[in-house]
Amino acid sequence: MSLVITLPDGSKKEFNHALTIKEVASSIATSLAKSAVAGKVNDEIRPLDFVVDTDARVAIITDKDEEGLQVLRNTAAFVFEMVASKQYPSVRLGTSELEEDGFFVDTDKEDQIKASELPDLEKEMQKIVKNGEKIEYKIVSKSELLDLFKDDPYKLELLKEEADEVAVYKLEDFVDFGFNALLLNTGKLKHFKLLSVAGAYWQGKSSNPMLQRIFGTAFFKEADLKADLQRREDIKERDHRTIGRDLDLFFVDPKVGAGLPYWMPKGATIRRVIERYIIDKEVADGYQHVYTPVLMNLDAYKTSGHWAHYREDMFPPMDMGDGEMLELRPMNCPSHIQIYNHHIRSYRELPIRIAELGMMHRYEKSGALSGLQRVREMTLNDGHTFVELDQVQSEFAKILKLIMEVYRDFDITDYYFRLSYRDPKNTDKYFANDEMWERSQKMLKGAMDDLGLEYVEAEGEAAFYGPKLDIQTKTALGNDETMSTIQLDFMLPERFNLSYVGKDGEEHRPVMVHRGIVGTMERFIAYLTEIYKGAFPTWLAPLQVKIIPVNNDAHGEYAQNVKDQLMKLGFRAEVDFRNEKLGYKIREAQTQKVPYTLVLGDDELQHNSVNVRKYGSEDQESKALSEFVSELSADVASYSRNK
Amino acid sequence: MSLVITLPDGSKKEFNHALTIKEVASSIATSLAKSAVAGKVNDEIRPLDFVVDTDARVAIITDKDEEGLQVLRNTAAFVFEMVASKQYPSVRLGTSELEEDGFFVDTDKEDQIKASELPDLEKEMQKIVKNGEKIEYKIVSKSELLDLFKDDPYKLELLKEEADEVAVYKLEDFVDFGFNALLLNTGKLKHFKLLSVAGAYWQGKSSNPMLQRIFGTAFFKEADLKADLQRREDIKERDHRTIGRDLDLFFVDPKVGAGLPYWMPKGATIRRVIERYIIDKEVADGYQHVYTPVLMNLDAYKTSGHWAHYREDMFPPMDMGDGEMLELRPMNCPSHIQIYNHHIRSYRELPIRIAELGMMHRYEKSGALSGLQRVREMTLNDGHTFVELDQVQSEFAKILKLIMEVYRDFDITDYYFRLSYRDPKNTDKYFANDEMWERSQKMLKGAMDDLGLEYVEAEGEAAFYGPKLDIQTKTALGNDETMSTIQLDFMLPERFNLSYVGKDGEEHRPVMVHRGIVGTMERFIAYLTEIYKGAFPTWLAPLQVKIIPVNNDAHGEYAQNVKDQLMKLGFRAEVDFRNEKLGYKIREAQTQKVPYTLVLGDDELQHNSVNVRKYGSEDQESKALSEFVSELSADVASYSRNK
Repeated sequence: MSLVITLPDGSKKEFNHALTIKEVASSIATSLAKSAVAGKVNDEIRPLDFVVDTDARVAIITDKDEEGLQVLRNTAAFVFEMVASKQYPSVRLGTSELEEDGFFVDTDKEDQIKASELPDLEKEMQKIVKNGEKIEYKIVSKSELLDLFKDDPYKLELLKEEADEVAVYKLEDFVDFGFNALLLNTGKLKHFKLLSVAGAYWQGKSSNPMLQRIFGTAFFKEADLKADLQRREDIKERDHRTIGRDLDLFFVDPKVGAGLPYWMPKGATIRRVIERYIIDKEVADGYQHVYTPVLMNLDAYKTSGHWAHYREDMFPPMDMGDGEMLELRPMNCPSHIQIYNHHIRSYRELPIRIAELGMMHRYEKSGALSGLQRVREMTLNDGHTFVELDQVQSEFAKILKLIMEVYRDFDITDYYFRLSYRDPKNTDKYFANDEMWERSQKMLKGAMDDLGLEYVEAEGEAAFYGPKLDIQTKTALGNDETMSTIQLDFMLPERFNLSYVGKDGEEHRPVMVHRGIVGTMERFIAYLTEIYKGAFPTWLAPLQVKIIPVNNDAHGEYAQNVKDQLMKLGFRAEVDFRNEKLGYKIREAQTQKVPYTLVLGDDELQHNSVNVRKYGSEDQESKALSEFVSELSADVASYSRNK
Repeated sequence: MSLVITLPDGSKKEFNHALTIKEVASSIATSLAKSAVAGKVNDEIRPLDFVVDTDARVAIITDKDEEGLQVLRNTAAFVFEMVASKQYPSVRLGTSELEEDGFFVDTDKEDQIKASELPDLEKEMQKIVKNGEKIEYKIVSKSELLDLFKDDPYKLELLKEEADEVAVYKLEDFVDFGFNALLLNTGKLKHFKLLSVAGAYWQGKSSNPMLQRIFGTAFFKEADLKADLQRREDIKERDHRTIGRDLDLFFVDPKVGAGLPYWMPKGATIRRVIERYIIDKEVADGYQHVYTPVLMNLDAYKTSGHWAHYREDMFPPMDMGDGEMLELRPMNCPSHIQIYNHHIRSYRELPIRIAELGMMHRYEKSGALSGLQRVREMTLNDGHTFVELDQVQSEFAKILKLIMEVYRDFDITDYYFRLSYRDPKNTDKYFANDEMWERSQKMLKGAMDDLGLEYVEAEGEAAFYGPKLDIQTKTALGNDETMSTIQLDFMLPERFNLSYVGKDGEEHRPVMVHRGIVGTMERFIAYLTEIYKGAFPTWLAPLQVKIIPVNNDAHGEYAQNVKDQLMKLGFRAEVDFRNEKLGYKIREAQTQKVPYTLVLGDDELQHNSVNVRKYGSEDQESKALSEFVSELSADVASYSRNK
């Protein structure tokens, strides 16, 4: 026989016999054979013992390659599976998959695997690794596997996807399939870590049983593993999901609804303060706040075009009988158009600014859901202003000014501007009105320049219906995210036949401006949680003052009295009356990131004073209660910027 | 032949021939024949010319009887139909029906009938009436009518419901069917009125064309008509739908969703003030406010029992795939139970008070919908407190105290208490725990007595799951309505397996208390609109101060300056810069029921003062701006009780 193997550089090697990937590597260089962890045969990743018996493109994967890391992590998952099966004979294994930075294995065991058991499992894995045991690779018939796994419903279901011949791996007595390639000796798997446990439905369907998903990662070098674990620690410390749980801000329970957050009292307090803040800010800026229904006749979304272009993100319509279909709104624009259209409008009224904390529903894929960041029910700080074309520039500048003020109050500093135009080479892809595009794009740019702001210009990034400005920020996980947006819309006014009576007594078409200042309450508070690392500034902190009497009997009444005075002034204060040690209570107030902790003992009682510790500072200071109240008021009134 | 007629007093009369109702009346008394307007044959209302030809119970209906009024109003509707057909040859007629206090006729005409056309139509009706024309009653075959109405789709659809023989009425050339009885001469129809026009879907289905529904009423005596029109005026003046339209507070558009109100800026302002008020009040009273999703897995409502007992009032579940069914919540209780169950609870924490402005959806029948009073999407001032059985009395008293405080702030005085117990003779109809019922009923009563409150006791009116207190008020239309409620619930804690760790270290079951202070935002604001007749007290008024410069050029800047000062202090103020006469602007501010109108001219500008008119008073008073600000602040802070 004759066999031609094409290497990545295009060179060809001819063999007169079938050979394994490892043998291909040896034929090139001994050193390559040594660092080889797997191969790629016609772009499919295969283990070193895979036999090449026809002409093929072959590439050697080493421990330097990204794909080598995949092979390593698959091997770690496999070794974990083997150890788990040994430790817990009754365990069943679901799928095992790679993630961007690690792997996971789903397990089903009556007495669920807990995070506290991971160190023991890790130790068992290390034994296997230390021994440098062989992992056998072979092809067996599907029927053999169907027999082997006859009592395992998960494996039987997974086998349905397999062909008649299945590649399996064997370590001691343990057998599994479904991996493209593993290391064939456990010796190279040295630096790995089991990370965490979380619930996950079998096949991702909520009607299926909930399994325990074990997360882990692995690296070829110890330094890489260490760096990755540190990175994970850093993210975790900022991750709003972790902080949200630790500070009891919110939770999501997929059993009652994936992507539907429950705001616990503390999270709800933060949200309420922000909602009142933004409404007051907008009302002072000339917005008219409204409440409109979350349900609307589906016809409105047919008119708007959402049903045609956005349907897969919408909830299923509800058939109310008599041909009436109601839809949970995915956007608030048609609702605000209803408000606009409820009266005949005159040029004298423009710009008309309609705003709402509008609840919307979008059907995000369950895999995309994440804490408060990606949810299915959300409340948007939404607003639509209706203007004459001439007013676009001044209205745009006004909105931008409002956004900058709000950012300042929340101490948001890490962002950039992106101005999106239509593609000048493809103008027929966009709403057809050249004059509107030309003039409005110039006006947006003019406003940015007038305000002296730097920005990125993105041709071809505009929406179909008009140019826009996005303000981009970054999440703790490093994802780029749009925080605020100002979008011109020439299309909806056409579709919904909006008009106003101009100075000339004739009907004219207004331009509609969609704008969001802080986005959805959910995403904004996720973002704030991350930038503040849970230490919310005083004006937002769910609990602003924790009061600790040195002795409940002696100082409890005074503590209660101080609390009542603070509450009456509108501050959020609490007395810790528990029977715990003083030091413990003070430490807990720090862990809960309460801005002010007051310790009240004999001295304070006598002088009507308080002993103050500010969050994050080791210092404590005694001062008159009245002085503390003044400081606290100033702190809140200044959005804690003086801190 | 022989025929026995049984009269209402049981006496029998025998006749040897068939005879009309009118002849039956004559056979009893000439005066009766004179006042007779129709008859009842075996409980069916029939016209005087109806022939009785078998044994039957017959009663004569006169102009004194309630049923006489029905005959009169049906006749008015018929005469209206005849006149409308004459005036508008192209008009089509839908159904004609009686209401409690009048009648309506549905009409379909390309150029819709407007309210302004009603007086003319009324005049035409009067001509017919004055002439005392005969209305002919006869029985014709259905096929004859199918032919007569062959071009009228509405009549053809109505004929489907008719038997082979149909009773018709004829006036001049006009023919119609579907009335049980009419007067046979228009002469008795003297005192009638066409009242109003509204849109209504053919057969009440929103997929059908919208018809014009013409409302009217009629009486035998002029004095009765006058009294009724006065009553309607009074109701209209207080009806929140009328006021809501006149003051631009809200609207409902059945085309985008029946029962789904849109809150215009002014209505939204009132709602926002109330929402903030009630949340702050509850937070100060120890409630923990939360936000929970409007969607929940249907399973929760199966557990709670709502799906079994309340399904017809619920929206259709949404099938999300994978067997997940999501439901728009009809109640917030299961959501608050989620919050309770999110942590292990200790007796030290009880009572735990969870509150929310919780949006809910209930599928009210379209006929029952009414403005903000009866809607399909509503936001409830909801709260659930979880207590030990021993705490029921004190918690109940605490809630009641809160309710009384709130009533005082809103100046609600017209209400009574109703305490509902289980039926002592039917205890097996209720949740089975005799001790709980006995003790808790005693505690509720004890609390009422301790507070010295008068109340009605209603045995057998308790819910299945526990005793309750309702606070009942009356709407402008005179309907009894529950404003506030405190309900004990022994059942849901069982169903959702709620527990807390007691002093003894064991698990115990809490009692759940459902409580609503001001009910839904929708119904509460409808109620307030009616009791205030739209003149909202200053703290609630959407616009608190209207500022009118005597001359825009000379005093406009000062007016703007006063407005800015007021806005900065948190008041709601507006300058009327329109080119209208001063008197017109002042009158309009009164019509819009703005609490304070400031007129600013030379004198005011010079002295930094304002000329104040309070709503409802003819007086005007000049005072320093600072003095006005103090008064305004005091007015708002006192919930306008000093007015």
